Amino acid sequence: MPFTSPVADVRFLLDKVLGYDRLAETETFAEAGADVTEAILSELGRLCDEVLAPVNRNGDLTPARLENGVVRTSPGFRDAYQAIAEGGWLGISATPEFGGMGLPQTLNTAMNEMMSGANLALQLCPLLSQGQIEALEHHASDELKALYLPKLISGQWTGSMNLTEPQAGSDVGALSTKAVDNGDGTYAITGQKIYITWGDHDVAENVCHLVLARLPDAAPGTKGISLFMVPKLIPDAEGNPGERNDLRVVSLEHKLGIHGSPTCVMSFEGARGWMVGKPHGGMAAMFTMMNNARLGVGTQGIGVAEAAYQHALAYAQERKQGKTPKGDTAIIDHADVRRMLAVMRAEIFAARAIALECGLALDMGKATGKDSWKARAALLTPIAKAHGTDIGCEVASMGVQVHGGMGFIEETGAAQYFRDVRITPIYEGTNGIQAMDLVARKMMDGGEAAARLLQEVQDNAEAARGTLPELAEATWEASETLREATEWLVAQEMNERFAGAVPYLRAFARVLGAHYHLKAAMVEPQGGRARLARVFIERILPEHAALLAQARSGAGPLYDLSVEDLQTA
Amino acid sequence: MPFTSPVADVRFLLDKVLGYDRLAETETFAEAGADVTEAILSELGRLCDEVLAPVNRNGDLTPARLENGVVRTSPGFRDAYQAIAEGGWLGISATPEFGGMGLPQTLNTAMNEMMSGANLALQLCPLLSQGQIEALEHHASDELKALYLPKLISGQWTGSMNLTEPQAGSDVGALSTKAVDNGDGTYAITGQKIYITWGDHDVAENVCHLVLARLPDAAPGTKGISLFMVPKLIPDAEGNPGERNDLRVVSLEHKLGIHGSPTCVMSFEGARGWMVGKPHGGMAAMFTMMNNARLGVGTQGIGVAEAAYQHALAYAQERKQGKTPKGDTAIIDHADVRRMLAVMRAEIFAARAIALECGLALDMGKATGKDSWKARAALLTPIAKAHGTDIGCEVASMGVQVHGGMGFIEETGAAQYFRDVRITPIYEGTNGIQAMDLVARKMMDGGEAAARLLQEVQDNAEAARGTLPELAEATWEASETLREATEWLVAQEMNERFAGAVPYLRAFARVLGAHYHLKAAMVEPQGGRARLARVFIERILPEHAALLAQARSGAGPLYDLSVEDLQTA
Repeated sequence: MPFTSPVADVRFLLDKVLGYDRLAETETFAEAGADVTEAILSELGRLCDEVLAPVNRNGDLTPARLENGVVRTSPGFRDAYQAIAEGGWLGISATPEFGGMGLPQTLNTAMNEMMSGANLALQLCPLLSQGQIEALEHHASDELKALYLPKLISGQWTGSMNLTEPQAGSDVGALSTKAVDNGDGTYAITGQKIYITWGDHDVAENVCHLVLARLPDAAPGTKGISLFMVPKLIPDAEGNPGERNDLRVVSLEHKLGIHGSPTCVMSFEGARGWMVGKPHGGMAAMFTMMNNARLGVGTQGIGVAEAAYQHALAYAQERKQGKTPKGDTAIIDHADVRRMLAVMRAEIFAARAIALECGLALDMGKATGKDSWKARAALLTPIAKAHGTDIGCEVASMGVQVHGGMGFIEETGAAQYFRDVRITPIYEGTNGIQAMDLVARKMMDGGEAAARLLQEVQDNAEAARGTLPELAEATWEASETLREATEWLVAQEMNERFAGAVPYLRAFARVLGAHYHLKAAMVEPQGGRARLARVFIERILPEHAALLAQARSGAGPLYDLSVEDLQTA
Repeated sequence: MPFTSPVADVRFLLDKVLGYDRLAETETFAEAGADVTEAILSELGRLCDEVLAPVNRNGDLTPARLENGVVRTSPGFRDAYQAIAEGGWLGISATPEFGGMGLPQTLNTAMNEMMSGANLALQLCPLLSQGQIEALEHHASDELKALYLPKLISGQWTGSMNLTEPQAGSDVGALSTKAVDNGDGTYAITGQKIYITWGDHDVAENVCHLVLARLPDAAPGTKGISLFMVPKLIPDAEGNPGERNDLRVVSLEHKLGIHGSPTCVMSFEGARGWMVGKPHGGMAAMFTMMNNARLGVGTQGIGVAEAAYQHALAYAQERKQGKTPKGDTAIIDHADVRRMLAVMRAEIFAARAIALECGLALDMGKATGKDSWKARAALLTPIAKAHGTDIGCEVASMGVQVHGGMGFIEETGAAQYFRDVRITPIYEGTNGIQAMDLVARKMMDGGEAAARLLQEVQDNAEAARGTLPELAEATWEASETLREATEWLVAQEMNERFAGAVPYLRAFARVLGAHYHLKAAMVEPQGGRARLARVFIERILPEHAALLAQARSGAGPLYDLSVEDLQTA
């Protein structure tokens, strides 16, 4: 399945729409000038298109398997991973002190999207390492940093996150894995963890598990959770992989998709671990890791959407079927196929803009220290995650539909995208939980960050009125409706907000999508960007009204339904 | 995966909402009184719940396979099929002259839904036979009828449809299979057909292929297509399966879902066939078969939605996770999970009502001969097909989401529904083609049938104003918007209609869904039906406005996009 990384599309967004050049004006990201960015994206594009994408089908057809307690990955995955590591891509945004490139999260976000489009199952491995690198940078002792960061950043070792237990999924506070002080600076970790992505493999020499566990005196719930580094092979005095730790892979899950990504049930049986951060302070470190990963997962949805779109577009150009009003017979000239393709591309553009803006806000927050940027990033993170992954599923499903009967046949490949991407609205916090985060924690400022962003949307729409009056007016009106809904929202009790959280988030993404499309259209008001913007704003944006009606319909009618009302009879 | 057939829910719709009792007042369906209907539905429920559902997972885990040219079906499928045949269910709506029960299509529709919920892969086999029975009843010679109908109705033999060829999918007129007169009343059929559902198997003793092919003097396109009965085993003088015909299964497709349904590539190699209908008149017979099957496929979507919903509801009641405002910890008490479950159930109710109303209109058309009923059935058929299958996909995806991480694990079963149902918006005419049928052929009356139906919607809403003013007003307003959009639509050129066909169809289904929910709410204005109606009308109905905006946005913006605009760079 050929894949072309959207290098020029990303550059257009960065350069013409999002104001990425502001980063190079800061001290922190002075190196991230246009030339470096161009070179990085081009090089990444080659890696994704020529090395990662060609083994994507292997992951699906020859899943990772457990052999004598060791995970064997899919054919070609080891070499592809090594190419990522050797390119230094694990550390694209990591600190230069330990070998990272120190480049913006914005670029990392573009990278994650491209790699996910090329090979989602494989990309999970570096994504997990990235999260671990960031957690260690912020929370680990200098000793742990010096030992682990160079190996993780070079890709010699990989990272995994060990949160979930059978009874503790979204409710991570219910976990029961134990950590007992060995008295020598280490802890004995005992418990079972599930859904451990890339929990074992043969693509690198060591696996570093970050494990949430409870000390014996820990309080119940999330306040009693500590974080531990538990390596598969314990580093020796020289920092090389040494003795085998007391942990093992119990089994691999049989999943709907991402077959190339080994999802492990892990058993820790008195394994030696080193505490990361303070006792009972594990959730703070875990949030660092998950926050990073949430944007990463959002970009996964967009990456798979892009791949599924390219695949469908190629098919629609080549597949002849029937006559059309244009005389041509490729199915791309049938109105409904064009509708699907145009919607797919317009959705991808919007979701990508939101994700890159989120990355940019993270970078600007880091570079300037300004709370306004940090609040922007915090606001956009759940939107980028939930919307990017929703769109991933929708676009991949439309990709199947464009293929007709061929889409249902596994050999065609469209079904793989459809299956693979279905995990993304679930992991790293379900999209329901993202929406709850948006309407609760991200509105603790009384809606101020949201209001500031919507003011920008409206200012931009005002400025566009002269050139593109209809698109500007529709965008302005929609953002006004969203502003009113936001004011209503922050005045509600929490469960009222939760009952409308998902449609509220989706409406927010619709308005932001229109905003970035409008900005793009202003760059070339007679060009293709404006034509695509028109499709988005005329066809897709109107959904915001129905979504906001749903967002405001409240918890009452949902809880009025008894279990008996819900029961089929 | 336990399954409970929605017997009481179907009866509620028939008795309280749709006016099914009108059928028993006709001569044609005098036997379809309340007692018979009750007995039939209960008996079907037992069959589905106790015989078909228990082997549903077998179909997924042990797909049908090709062994030495013969298809071996999944464990338990043969016995389950035999139970269907022995119950006489193949002929529920077939003519009593050849052993059928002669009962309404409405009941057949309910049966198809229940069987699909219990076991979609298996249900395809009787669904194909039903279509063949109907095609033969209408188009075959008396001799062919006498030979084939008793065997098909008893289920001793099964039917398959052979339309598609590699270059002729949605464009069936492009097919090239040849039929040459043998001079003895038979024809030699030669060609390859793909996507032949249940094209071979071991659940019954013979497979009767209806094959579209061209006579040597045939015109190009659909006008040159004839239909032939081509049995796997040629009946001997006593009508028993005799000599093997010259046809074979080349291979089975490896599909995203419905693994228990063998999808064959068939090769006809001078096979003996008997013409059904007139030379070059094959499309008429095929349309009979497909029209029947379209409603059947719509009910497949609803059936799988029902099964996925029950599965998710049971999980949500049992899975404990976190604290909720209600103090309880089952995830059903989290607002967003309740939202998903309520939406799922409300969607299923609406889609089921549309499908049953379509069945009822078919029956009333047959029983009364009135064109208004026939036009109603014709109008509702593409809506029932496309909407039922869209809802099937959406509800099955929500079923995965309710399960969280467990939903992505194949053993849980939620993923099977999600994979299985994905074919339904594709086969029997893609949903895009259904929508084109709605806005083109079904609007050749200038929108009269649609206007009549919308008048009923508005009359009903008027009548409900006193009791349920808000729900009535929202439904009336939405139907008015749809009425205006319909008037706009019929004044457009064809490709303008096509560009908005899918959203138009979806909006129509939204309004109809509100209509049936409102009728149900009026039956018990203080009861659960009214509470569910409120969820539909407040949360889901508002989508109609965005859909109609999309429907009216026209072909221009889609065709303005150049291929370059659509190309990723």
